[in-house]
Amino acid sequence: MTMTMHNAQLRADSAVSRLDTFIALSDFDRPTLVVDLDRVERQFRALATGLGRAQIHYAVKANPAEEVIDRLVSLGSHFDAASRGEIALCLSRGAKPREISFGNTIKKPSDIAWAWDRGITLFAADAEEELEKIAEHAPGARVYIRLIVEVSEADWPLTRKFGCDASKALELMDYARDLALDPVGISFHVGSQTRRAEMWGPALDALAETWAAAQAAGHGLSILNIGGGFPAFYGEEIEAPEAYARAVMEMVEARFPNVPHIMAEPGRGMVAEAGTIVAEAMLVSRKSDRDLHRWVYLDIGRFSGLAETEGEAIRYQLETARDHEPMGPCILAGPSCDSADVLYEKRPVMLPVGLKSGDRVLIRNTGAYTSTYSSVGFNGFPPLDVVCI
Amino acid sequence: MTMTMHNAQLRADSAVSRLDTFIALSDFDRPTLVVDLDRVERQFRALATGLGRAQIHYAVKANPAEEVIDRLVSLGSHFDAASRGEIALCLSRGAKPREISFGNTIKKPSDIAWAWDRGITLFAADAEEELEKIAEHAPGARVYIRLIVEVSEADWPLTRKFGCDASKALELMDYARDLALDPVGISFHVGSQTRRAEMWGPALDALAETWAAAQAAGHGLSILNIGGGFPAFYGEEIEAPEAYARAVMEMVEARFPNVPHIMAEPGRGMVAEAGTIVAEAMLVSRKSDRDLHRWVYLDIGRFSGLAETEGEAIRYQLETARDHEPMGPCILAGPSCDSADVLYEKRPVMLPVGLKSGDRVLIRNTGAYTSTYSSVGFNGFPPLDVVCI
Repeated sequence: MTMTMHNAQLRADSAVSRLDTFIALSDFDRPTLVVDLDRVERQFRALATGLGRAQIHYAVKANPAEEVIDRLVSLGSHFDAASRGEIALCLSRGAKPREISFGNTIKKPSDIAWAWDRGITLFAADAEEELEKIAEHAPGARVYIRLIVEVSEADWPLTRKFGCDASKALELMDYARDLALDPVGISFHVGSQTRRAEMWGPALDALAETWAAAQAAGHGLSILNIGGGFPAFYGEEIEAPEAYARAVMEMVEARFPNVPHIMAEPGRGMVAEAGTIVAEAMLVSRKSDRDLHRWVYLDIGRFSGLAETEGEAIRYQLETARDHEPMGPCILAGPSCDSADVLYEKRPVMLPVGLKSGDRVLIRNTGAYTSTYSSVGFNGFPPLDVVCI
Repeated sequence: MTMTMHNAQLRADSAVSRLDTFIALSDFDRPTLVVDLDRVERQFRALATGLGRAQIHYAVKANPAEEVIDRLVSLGSHFDAASRGEIALCLSRGAKPREISFGNTIKKPSDIAWAWDRGITLFAADAEEELEKIAEHAPGARVYIRLIVEVSEADWPLTRKFGCDASKALELMDYARDLALDPVGISFHVGSQTRRAEMWGPALDALAETWAAAQAAGHGLSILNIGGGFPAFYGEEIEAPEAYARAVMEMVEARFPNVPHIMAEPGRGMVAEAGTIVAEAMLVSRKSDRDLHRWVYLDIGRFSGLAETEGEAIRYQLETARDHEPMGPCILAGPSCDSADVLYEKRPVMLPVGLKSGDRVLIRNTGAYTSTYSSVGFNGFPPLDVVCI
């Protein structure tokens, strides 16, 4: 896998140059996410090439910055929206209603009606009550049923919150037809940050069985939505996006040779590597002269953009100007007065021994699932700023 | 403890009447926290009576709504601020600089300088580097040293993120004096939501030893900051605020008979019970016909205000209009497409069997640590709205 690592490194290198030039020449008065739109574009092209005939629906929730949406609209991306707010955003940036799917299985009736009025025709569901809401407020709409995947090896798995089991899915397709909806397909999600394409195999196998059963039950399904899961580089080796997407599609085509339409919903895999957060060390300390580890407090934490460090699940790569100096282990924490605002403690991070208050700290590959998680003002700290270049 | 429960119930009853009238007569287009300012005032008066000579510094981070600050300013409260933003807020609402302490042990140098320029003279610290920053940007300022408390029984304990051990604290007092700062006292925090006053005993014992050692080392300490920890009612029995505060102060006075000034920093204990969140059920479903539990999805979740449900730590009380109907267990989740956005799963909650999409759900005693945790727009959902009455 040396070549893969090499590729990842190359990708990282090409990503940092434009970003790093901008960052090096800029002052920031608070933690700021800088997103390189050209990097987003390169990632889109790589994924689109690898995905072949599958249509990309970018998962807007990963990063809804207007400039990101603009760039993806210009490239021909479609969009997976989680809410009325995200649909309104995509429409306002020029996406067509037919290019937007309402992919959250949990929707307010008024939001379904609002979306339907604006021409959105494709909705996700995983429950009877959701189908009833859609039938009432978007009569005749196309729906796809979301299946639970219980075989995920993802770094940020999706548990049982979304989806239903196979027998329920078949019941829901029947029920949708009874409600005069158009049950067009099935979706699933292999789990966010699924690092290797081969991890998709068991989930696709399970899905193929349900697909066949639905066909046998008389549902002429036309859309297979393979969801997201496309990974970003957080220190552990991943495959390059084009090769990863191609490998996934080969597995899909082998199991679903005749599906008319395939949708894919990359979010993290589209934007994470295009972003770097510029942060600052606020304090370096020891609690006791007997302590083995320093504590390093940044001006950003779990409640101002780094929510995915919960349980130390996502381990971001850190860089400082002192990384050529001797390094030592640190517990890393955010700036708020909340003791839960600790980023990495069980597995301390290595940072320069000479690190001190005021030093800039770059947090790499943070273009996804950071800015919108940021609190409105926990402890009086302003939200993460976002600059697109 | 029957009387205590009775008191808690009485307090709840008096709290809900004004709130509930307002809520019953209002429509809300999104999740909304309604805060009863008169309830805040009653709580302030009860705590102030129980705390006697101790000066209340309200922990602004618990709820920084302008109307809350206004009411507390009018009542003579002082303020514990976590950031420049919170100091600016308090000053803008009429608090005097001498009434505001900068209680976060993690401060930016520029924020220290800004606060000092505006007349803030009392700062917290638990590390050498923090003292150096204060000495440089607020020369001669009063500082108190925060101690670690490792004997907490709180529901939301503060771990080791803040504070230093006893020997480090003595070193820091010496160092503060060397830096021409004025080391005036010691602070600690027994842990948020410390339900019974007796739980303070071991922490106060440990603190008294350090206090005596500091006196013996020639530090004429004048301020004892007992921090927060004052609880709110979340279903488990707590003592009424006045009795609780009086019991804590009796324990303090027994151990620190001659301390000139005592500060207390209630946050949760001041505002939690004054607030109710008005939410809505968005979906009720089962994943499988074999599932024992329903899933109930609300229009509010961990990333839109209910962050303290992390690890199911804080268990909010829920109410619906169907609570007289048969009840059954539910897994409770938020509306976002994030699988981590599950509120209660290990210990399901009881909700009406007939609950359905569109039903209003009241979440009680949510006046603290909700609105500011809310994300700016995760998944395109707007932040928690706040209305003060």
